[in-house]
Amino acid sequence: MPRYMKKRSKKAGLPPGTLVYIGDRKPDGVRITILDYDESSFHEMDAETVEACFPFKEKPTVTWINVDGIHEAEVIRKLGECYGLHPLVQEDILNTDQRPKMEDYGDYLYIVLKMLSHADKSEEILFEQVSLILGRNFVISFQEGKEGDVFGPIRERIRSGKGRIRKTGADFLAYSLIDAVVDSYFVIMEKLGERIDFLEEQLVDRPSPKTLHSIHTLKKEMIFLRKSVWPLREVITAMERGDSLLIHEQTRAYLRDVYDHTIQVIETIETFRDMVTGMLDIYLSSLSNRLNEVMKVLTIIATLFMPLTFLAGVYGMNFRHMPELEWPWGYPAVLGLMSAVTLSMLAYFKKKKWF
Amino acid sequence: MPRYMKKRSKKAGLPPGTLVYIGDRKPDGVRITILDYDESSFHEMDAETVEACFPFKEKPTVTWINVDGIHEAEVIRKLGECYGLHPLVQEDILNTDQRPKMEDYGDYLYIVLKMLSHADKSEEILFEQVSLILGRNFVISFQEGKEGDVFGPIRERIRSGKGRIRKTGADFLAYSLIDAVVDSYFVIMEKLGERIDFLEEQLVDRPSPKTLHSIHTLKKEMIFLRKSVWPLREVITAMERGDSLLIHEQTRAYLRDVYDHTIQVIETIETFRDMVTGMLDIYLSSLSNRLNEVMKVLTIIATLFMPLTFLAGVYGMNFRHMPELEWPWGYPAVLGLMSAVTLSMLAYFKKKKWF
Amino acid sequence: MPRYMKKRSKKAGLPPGTLVYIGDRKPDGVRITILDYDESSFHEMDAETVEACFPFKEKPTVTWINVDGIHEAEVIRKLGECYGLHPLVQEDILNTDQRPKMEDYGDYLYIVLKMLSHADKSEEILFEQVSLILGRNFVISFQEGKEGDVFGPIRERIRSGKGRIRKTGADFLAYSLIDAVVDSYFVIMEKLGERIDFLEEQLVDRPSPKTLHSIHTLKKEMIFLRKSVWPLREVITAMERGDSLLIHEQTRAYLRDVYDHTIQVIETIETFRDMVTGMLDIYLSSLSNRLNEVMKVLTIIATLFMPLTFLAGVYGMNFRHMPELEWPWGYPAVLGLMSAVTLSMLAYFKKKKWF
Amino acid sequence: MPRYMKKRSKKAGLPPGTLVYIGDRKPDGVRITILDYDESSFHEMDAETVEACFPFKEKPTVTWINVDGIHEAEVIRKLGECYGLHPLVQEDILNTDQRPKMEDYGDYLYIVLKMLSHADKSEEILFEQVSLILGRNFVISFQEGKEGDVFGPIRERIRSGKGRIRKTGADFLAYSLIDAVVDSYFVIMEKLGERIDFLEEQLVDRPSPKTLHSIHTLKKEMIFLRKSVWPLREVITAMERGDSLLIHEQTRAYLRDVYDHTIQVIETIETFRDMVTGMLDIYLSSLSNRLNEVMKVLTIIATLFMPLTFLAGVYGMNFRHMPELEWPWGYPAVLGLMSAVTLSMLAYFKKKKWF
Amino acid sequence: MPRYMKKRSKKAGLPPGTLVYIGDRKPDGVRITILDYDESSFHEMDAETVEACFPFKEKPTVTWINVDGIHEAEVIRKLGECYGLHPLVQEDILNTDQRPKMEDYGDYLYIVLKMLSHADKSEEILFEQVSLILGRNFVISFQEGKEGDVFGPIRERIRSGKGRIRKTGADFLAYSLIDAVVDSYFVIMEKLGERIDFLEEQLVDRPSPKTLHSIHTLKKEMIFLRKSVWPLREVITAMERGDSLLIHEQTRAYLRDVYDHTIQVIETIETFRDMVTGMLDIYLSSLSNRLNEVMKVLTIIATLFMPLTFLAGVYGMNFRHMPELEWPWGYPAVLGLMSAVTLSMLAYFKKKKWF
Repeated sequence: MPRYMKKRSKKAGLPPGTLVYIGDRKPDGVRITILDYDESSFHEMDAETVEACFPFKEKPTVTWINVDGIHEAEVIRKLGECYGLHPLVQEDILNTDQRPKMEDYGDYLYIVLKMLSHADKSEEILFEQVSLILGRNFVISFQEGKEGDVFGPIRERIRSGKGRIRKTGADFLAYSLIDAVVDSYFVIMEKLGERIDFLEEQLVDRPSPKTLHSIHTLKKEMIFLRKSVWPLREVITAMERGDSLLIHEQTRAYLRDVYDHTIQVIETIETFRDMVTGMLDIYLSSLSNRLNEVMKVLTIIATLFMPLTFLAGVYGMNFRHMPELEWPWGYPAVLGLMSAVTLSMLAYFKKKKWF
Repeated sequence: MPRYMKKRSKKAGLPPGTLVYIGDRKPDGVRITILDYDESSFHEMDAETVEACFPFKEKPTVTWINVDGIHEAEVIRKLGECYGLHPLVQEDILNTDQRPKMEDYGDYLYIVLKMLSHADKSEEILFEQVSLILGRNFVISFQEGKEGDVFGPIRERIRSGKGRIRKTGADFLAYSLIDAVVDSYFVIMEKLGERIDFLEEQLVDRPSPKTLHSIHTLKKEMIFLRKSVWPLREVITAMERGDSLLIHEQTRAYLRDVYDHTIQVIETIETFRDMVTGMLDIYLSSLSNRLNEVMKVLTIIATLFMPLTFLAGVYGMNFRHMPELEWPWGYPAVLGLMSAVTLSMLAYFKKKKWF
Repeated sequence: MPRYMKKRSKKAGLPPGTLVYIGDRKPDGVRITILDYDESSFHEMDAETVEACFPFKEKPTVTWINVDGIHEAEVIRKLGECYGLHPLVQEDILNTDQRPKMEDYGDYLYIVLKMLSHADKSEEILFEQVSLILGRNFVISFQEGKEGDVFGPIRERIRSGKGRIRKTGADFLAYSLIDAVVDSYFVIMEKLGERIDFLEEQLVDRPSPKTLHSIHTLKKEMIFLRKSVWPLREVITAMERGDSLLIHEQTRAYLRDVYDHTIQVIETIETFRDMVTGMLDIYLSSLSNRLNEVMKVLTIIATLFMPLTFLAGVYGMNFRHMPELEWPWGYPAVLGLMSAVTLSMLAYFKKKKWF
Repeated sequence: MPRYMKKRSKKAGLPPGTLVYIGDRKPDGVRITILDYDESSFHEMDAETVEACFPFKEKPTVTWINVDGIHEAEVIRKLGECYGLHPLVQEDILNTDQRPKMEDYGDYLYIVLKMLSHADKSEEILFEQVSLILGRNFVISFQEGKEGDVFGPIRERIRSGKGRIRKTGADFLAYSLIDAVVDSYFVIMEKLGERIDFLEEQLVDRPSPKTLHSIHTLKKEMIFLRKSVWPLREVITAMERGDSLLIHEQTRAYLRDVYDHTIQVIETIETFRDMVTGMLDIYLSSLSNRLNEVMKVLTIIATLFMPLTFLAGVYGMNFRHMPELEWPWGYPAVLGLMSAVTLSMLAYFKKKKWF
Repeated sequence: MPRYMKKRSKKAGLPPGTLVYIGDRKPDGVRITILDYDESSFHEMDAETVEACFPFKEKPTVTWINVDGIHEAEVIRKLGECYGLHPLVQEDILNTDQRPKMEDYGDYLYIVLKMLSHADKSEEILFEQVSLILGRNFVISFQEGKEGDVFGPIRERIRSGKGRIRKTGADFLAYSLIDAVVDSYFVIMEKLGERIDFLEEQLVDRPSPKTLHSIHTLKKEMIFLRKSVWPLREVITAMERGDSLLIHEQTRAYLRDVYDHTIQVIETIETFRDMVTGMLDIYLSSLSNRLNEVMKVLTIIATLFMPLTFLAGVYGMNFRHMPELEWPWGYPAVLGLMSAVTLSMLAYFKKKKWF
């Protein structure tokens, strides 16, 4: 099974709206946290059961329900029922190989994002799906719950009441979550940049088949990164330009800002792709270069010693009548001839600039 | 004859609307099954003759007529006449190398899809054309009837009355059929993913000309897959966004969902294409690498032994006056010289990092 | 002169609308045939002089004037004058390296197509330009008249009165001519498919520089095919979607049908291009593979025999004091040493999987 | 300095509208010729000073002022002032590395074209900028004046009064100039086609590094050609579709005609690019082929003679006890063994199809 | 850290609008200069503190405030507050890895550009971000302040009162700044052109791995150049076509002019990219060519001497009964045979055109 592909096939044949979790089973239970606030009040709690979220639906304050772990279909179903989510949305939340998208259901927007992180120590990039439901006065976020998230600073800002976040509505909260996800991409980009730099040095100093393998892995990772980030562009444009009443005029400037960041990430990925492609060319031509070097050594050696060996062979023949063999200065003469041959060969190579 | 191309040429020169079956003759006869249902009633039958389908045209219930085997032009003609299908539509149903398309004829929509399946055990992908006619209260589906179909679960859902299908109209049935076809693509994608994984391992462990051949075959299959899936995007968009009265508002959300799935399949195909292209690069550079390795061995051997053989040759010469030959320590001295030459050569290779 | 390029330069500097025939002179004279028909009547004749065509202009029946051979500018000029063709249209009819296009002059449409055929026995594809003038009640078709045409079945259908053609207007006749041209593309595509298949087999069995040459020729032919077929798409769209009153509503469905065929031809060409490109990759890597094979053989041979030859050389030296030479078992010992060296070398190659 | 790039940098920092001639200084002075005509009258003169052009501004006849040599900024400035040209237009006329463009200033259109020609005997393509000012009743054309122009036939047609040109307005004159420029491209294309043909033959018969160099030069020339011709498409479309009152309805059909020609030139360039790219592939694989050939010869020779030389070496050893040496038929036996080895090697190569 | 990437990651998690300087710390302080002018008056000063800029906000004259050094967030914040800049704009000014963009905030436009320069003596291209705020009667420009700027000539023109600049508004000043930046690109392009020319010569005369490295560096630089210049196209289009009241009608013609220049720069970059890609191909095939040359030398030498050495070996065998050895003319006969073999080999190579 390729690691970037989910077992989507197990859903084939089921009716639409069937809630089946696609992805690796996660051992821990589902964890639901609720942050409820307005400019003056703030309330934070862990929900024991999903029913604890229901009363917040009607409160005028902004409510952020974060669901960590989406493998229990029942939780999604109950939440969905209470908050009036379309069965297809419920299905999509469970389906973790969605591409980023935004769907406007009138009462709420459904947004899918990819959260990226690095596995501890390893260079592998992990992809986690985040689904956001933006309603009039609430945001529900669903995570796979594998690796922690990037929303810590936002929670902190809500708690402390700093910045605009407590003074604004649910749309600004949704924007902040998207912004946090996009900001985290820059961290990934920098690590990738470092890897590319390291590979480039390696390429110049000591290229090896391992270098090729690393380039190939990098290239593949870039393919998947691209797939996760490209559609985000449209998602944010759709939010900014769309005519949904859920998004206020002041928030649109902020969405434009996060749109700019997305474009930057996309451009960086494209730049990296170009660079990695260039590295492959360099690798291939360094291989050719090396082959040329090796072949030159071989040719020089062969060209030097073959005539000499032949000469030695001639005077190693056992003919009875070989006058040269009798001459007292025959041996030095042959040695001299050999030196002359060698020197002229070397001169030839010099002229050809072979060394 | 390339296997993906049909003998279209035998139609050249015939007037438009001529019913000629393009494709391989299928031995069995045509099999027509009828499912007729509404929320409360359900009726299933095998039609002995095509005339058995005619009474359902005027019934208010939803009727699904499935025609398995399209090689008998007469059957298509009679059905087409009864249900008012345009001669060009009748022609297209028989013509099995259509690209996926949707045509709005006012009273009915004509939809062409490609159903994919794996031949038993083999890795070859089979393409089968499915034509759908969506009328106000009926759906007619035409299959080539080669390999069974992917509509089993839908029949089951209609029979059992589970889910929305019995409560909704013909448009939802058509959507369900399209959805089943698209869902089956994921199965194909997974098998392809496994093959790519397997080839990648092979590429690293033991690349051979056979690997190259497999990559090439895979690439060709991808070309045909792409051709079958890409146009589906437009088909579904046309259905969702179109202004046909045959498709109700509630069904459009479901069409959007199947559209998302199609995009995912397309993206997966593109990703696979990128990966396969990358594999070809890897294969080529592993060839170069191996050549380099082989040449290094040759060069090392030649460079080590050529000077030695020359030295031995020199002292194999038969000159009468070669003072070295008389020296008692001449032989050990030459052996020593040979060792010295060998060692310095080895040091040179070591410095050049050749082994 | 590249064969696909016409001597266009001889027109440089002439005023627009000057009638100069571009192309190879054709020995035979111009042949004009007239078919005049409506639902009830049918009349066919060969026009001795161009003036014989003039009376048909005002007749209410549908008239098809087919001009075979366009090298006599005078004929075109006279016909053009009588039927009111713009001087630029007259010029374009003579100019045989037009790209397919459609121009709406209000009273008539001017359509340029490329008719393809295979030269007898050879694999070369011949390109012939067909110009159509579609008026209210007439169609004039101009051919270069090199190789016969693909309109035979249409003439037959008109004569026999079968099908819709006698019951409909000039626009359906024009459609039928275009359809016949597009249908003939499928024949070309199949032959190309067979050639590609044949080349692919050759590539696997016995690649040679000749194979490369064939691939290259095929690729070049594809470039020209593409150039002839791509613009047709727009031509037919312009006819179907355009607002010309010359094309009736019922004919548009047929134009949509021929549009679908054009798309299929275009897709087939693109597929072939991808396949041919893939074949080039295969060819190149099979070259590398063979080089590797050859080099392995060389390296194995050299690595086996160089040390042995050296050993033999050592004991061929003529030193007076070489104790080994005196030993009674010296010779067998050396032979044993040689065998040991050989066997260890073979084991090394075995381990490296060189054979 | 790359030859296709002008010293644009010397303008950096100057205010917009500063008249600085960019390009190589041309020794001769500026030459201004005036053609003034209407249907009945015709007047031709060489203007001694730029002031001689001023009276024509108000005349109702069509005036064509052709300025040959644009290196004297003062001339441009005076003409510009009299005819009311925007300072930026005056600047652009002097600036000879403009890309083709059309700008509508209401009272006049400013059109930039590239005129191409071949240097005498050499294959180098020369690029010369032509600026046209199309006013209500005048056309001013500015040329660099390096190599003569392609407008001779137009002058002749005006003088003789043949064709439409004397009967129509300034817009038709401007069209005629553009048409002459585009027609001259076909001459360039044919020469290029011949060069490509010649190179292709060379590629098959005797590829050499010089061939590669020629291909590379051709490719570079194509890049610059493309840059000069592509934008013309938009220029002509803008003229034809634009709403400028300076262009009459009848002229638009002619512009459409020249548009078609431009498309043909562009397609030819693209075709040539594809062909040149294909030639590079052929060249590279012919290199590989040759390497394979060379290596096969080497391997056959080495494989034949190494075992033989070894055998000879064995019996050249000086061991006292080598029984074979004493046998009377030892020598013939060894010769026989050598022949056997050679024959079996040859059989092996035969089987491998190496020759 | 790749040099073209800024430490963007240190902003991850901060609320939007937080002012954090991204980039290398610059030791010197911030320098603010003010130019205030209208047609009749002119005033120039260095602002000691940021507060000195505030009074100019309300003056009817045009004010240009240039901030050199953006690492002190406080300065930006104060200026921003006084001139009413949106927090996101303030943030973006500090954030030096923006892509060029234009944002319309109603009261003012925010424009981001990249200023390019060459490091002294080195060939490295430096990228510096310039932010412009265009208000009704003021322009504020922010530079990183690393390397001086390209605005000197504009200051001079304002001081001297030459040209249009003193007679026009703030929009013309903003245009002039953009124009100066774009003009400076031409200088960069010319240097690049020279480098490409130099590399091309090197490629023909003496290609080496260093050449490859230079090509690779050039290619990478092109990637970043492209990224900096491409978006400028949209920026200027947005200014020219936009409906902002801050830009007067007369200025739009000038913006169209700078747009043309941008297109020229972009086309030059694309041309360079094509040329560099072509150079890589040339380099690779020159490597192959050289390998072929080397291998031919080796093969010729081996093919000449191997048979000869074998022959010598045969007559160096010690068989007792070798009749040839006794023949008086045996030795000359063998020498003759050797010459014959050599000559026939040479003839063979001659025929194969190997030298």
